[in-house]
Amino acid sequence: MPVTAIKLINFRNIKQCELNTDAPEVFFVGENGQGKTNILESVYYLCYGTSFRTREDSILCKNDESFFSASASYFKSREDINEIAISWKNRVKNIRLNGKTITDRKDIIRNQPCIIFCHDDIGFVNGPPEKRRLFLDQTLSLYNPYYIDLLRKYKKILKTRNHLLRENNTALLDVYDEQFVELGMEIQKKREEITSLFEPFFKDKFSEIAKFKELVAIQYQSTWSGMNEKDEILNFIRNKRKYEILNGVSSSGPHRDKLLFLHRDSDFSQIGSTGQMRLISLILRIIQAEFYSRTTGRKPLLLLDDVLLELDREKRIRILENLPPYEQAFFTFLPNEDYVNYHKENTMVYEVKSGGFKKRG
Amino acid sequence: MPVTAIKLINFRNIKQCELNTDAPEVFFVGENGQGKTNILESVYYLCYGTSFRTREDSILCKNDESFFSASASYFKSREDINEIAISWKNRVKNIRLNGKTITDRKDIIRNQPCIIFCHDDIGFVNGPPEKRRLFLDQTLSLYNPYYIDLLRKYKKILKTRNHLLRENNTALLDVYDEQFVELGMEIQKKREEITSLFEPFFKDKFSEIAKFKELVAIQYQSTWSGMNEKDEILNFIRNKRKYEILNGVSSSGPHRDKLLFLHRDSDFSQIGSTGQMRLISLILRIIQAEFYSRTTGRKPLLLLDDVLLELDREKRIRILENLPPYEQAFFTFLPNEDYVNYHKENTMVYEVKSGGFKKRG
Repeated sequence: MPVTAIKLINFRNIKQCELNTDAPEVFFVGENGQGKTNILESVYYLCYGTSFRTREDSILCKNDESFFSASASYFKSREDINEIAISWKNRVKNIRLNGKTITDRKDIIRNQPCIIFCHDDIGFVNGPPEKRRLFLDQTLSLYNPYYIDLLRKYKKILKTRNHLLRENNTALLDVYDEQFVELGMEIQKKREEITSLFEPFFKDKFSEIAKFKELVAIQYQSTWSGMNEKDEILNFIRNKRKYEILNGVSSSGPHRDKLLFLHRDSDFSQIGSTGQMRLISLILRIIQAEFYSRTTGRKPLLLLDDVLLELDREKRIRILENLPPYEQAFFTFLPNEDYVNYHKENTMVYEVKSGGFKKRG
Repeated sequence: MPVTAIKLINFRNIKQCELNTDAPEVFFVGENGQGKTNILESVYYLCYGTSFRTREDSILCKNDESFFSASASYFKSREDINEIAISWKNRVKNIRLNGKTITDRKDIIRNQPCIIFCHDDIGFVNGPPEKRRLFLDQTLSLYNPYYIDLLRKYKKILKTRNHLLRENNTALLDVYDEQFVELGMEIQKKREEITSLFEPFFKDKFSEIAKFKELVAIQYQSTWSGMNEKDEILNFIRNKRKYEILNGVSSSGPHRDKLLFLHRDSDFSQIGSTGQMRLISLILRIIQAEFYSRTTGRKPLLLLDDVLLELDREKRIRILENLPPYEQAFFTFLPNEDYVNYHKENTMVYEVKSGGFKKRG
């Protein structure tokens, strides 16, 4: 469902704008700090009801203003035009779909799928382990609401369990360990499944795009590796209880598992160049979109924010040729980038300056 | 002291090379993953005895090889040529300065000061708090060996204190708290001093280079803020003891302090664009080099690895004009960058491909 128009008031550095975006590709070109990312953020915000850059809505409000609003029109079909609108006033957020207020954020996510390729994604490769777990959790959550619930339950149990460990409450620990292991095993299984599903796809894409002769493998490394039975794991964590009580934390489980990128059994984040790591992060987002489409039969909206900069020209072109099926894609570019070469027949180009937008051509 | 020649064997993807680098600026140009960063890493390694990308020397060794070596010649004066060499064989590292083995790494650091501007530096702005503390600690350590010792002692005490908290050993805690607060206060004082010293410099540079109309301020936020007396802080942490014992961690002290970049009292990492954050990280490195030079009277060697990419053309030029005084600077570029515009009369350019180097012109 392509977004055909965007309206913003007091959103980040954008005082007011009404943009026609009825094209399969829309480019936003401008110098640093002019508002390119802000427009992508507004689209993401309209797809998810939250930003990818901040958790606080107040940050999205233009300086010295007390309210902001964002809305977008998009086609379900050429006959059926829909509108999503979010307003924020007196610190209260209101989300409306075709004029009707939405109270559960799940309804807005289902409405318009969207995948953001952003600068921080390089952390999927060289960031802390939680960034890599986040990638798996995001991918699974996108098309599996059950997984979202599972994760929430696990996090709640984990918090309680850590509390019990610090209080040395062995009686209650015996009870909680059961649920902890059950939920943990389910999460690990889902994560392992998806990792092995996308591994061959990843290998192909990486060697095709990076032209790197040797294979880079993905491995899910579970802290309960080699144990398939609940009782085995329960034994394992009970043997660790003394240590866990001393440290006050649960030392194993999916919250400690690792996703590894391996080259000849070495951690690729120690070996790869910045460009190679950027490439991996891009391929991971492509995988996220591909798996979403395969499972749901729907094509997402893609947002690509400043993520081609570290690549040489050939790799930029190969990435653009290898993008997943999309309904529409928004890109940001610096004026000195050769974005003109990536133009297609219907590409729409906006110049961005001080929060203002000027259509080119 | 300019590095005039570099010799490498089995270093990362470089099988063997001998490079003449007798120029004030040396550019390394190549596509992703060819070895540009590796050559910068070898220079850093020869300045510090460790890499900026990995702690493990084995990672630096070319695939399937069991040893590597790196050496560099540099001038103290035109009459006095020196050589630093590091070899790694059978997992043992040997560092030699003019043929004499060095056992204390401090001696090599003093020998050839060097500042690396690397891709990860953006974490100084948008990374976790420890990345920002690291910036302060690095800046102070560069010219103050006493600060290195201070930090080491504090970390040791902190570790012991956390252990005592988990064991609920209140008798020993009473003793350790004294040293913990004394060392902590010293670190905080040094960090606060340097922050207020470089703040005006930072503000000037940022508004000059970013052409951002509004000020971005730096603030050191101490967890013991407003308390100037040792006894006050001791009281403060004793009041927290119950909570700390329950959580098993020291909840205040310099290991929890924050360095903030503020724009109108909001966290700039939530507002700034990628380009603006890159700019701040570059200015922080410039400050690091400036302060080193002012205190020691010596100019460092600069290594700039892929850090101009996110900037528009005007800001790239302004950064290059605002570099700190340097003895020599090494840069990496992608072939599609307009590096020819940054050329000076004596600039040396190497093309990098599959770990090989070809001098241009």
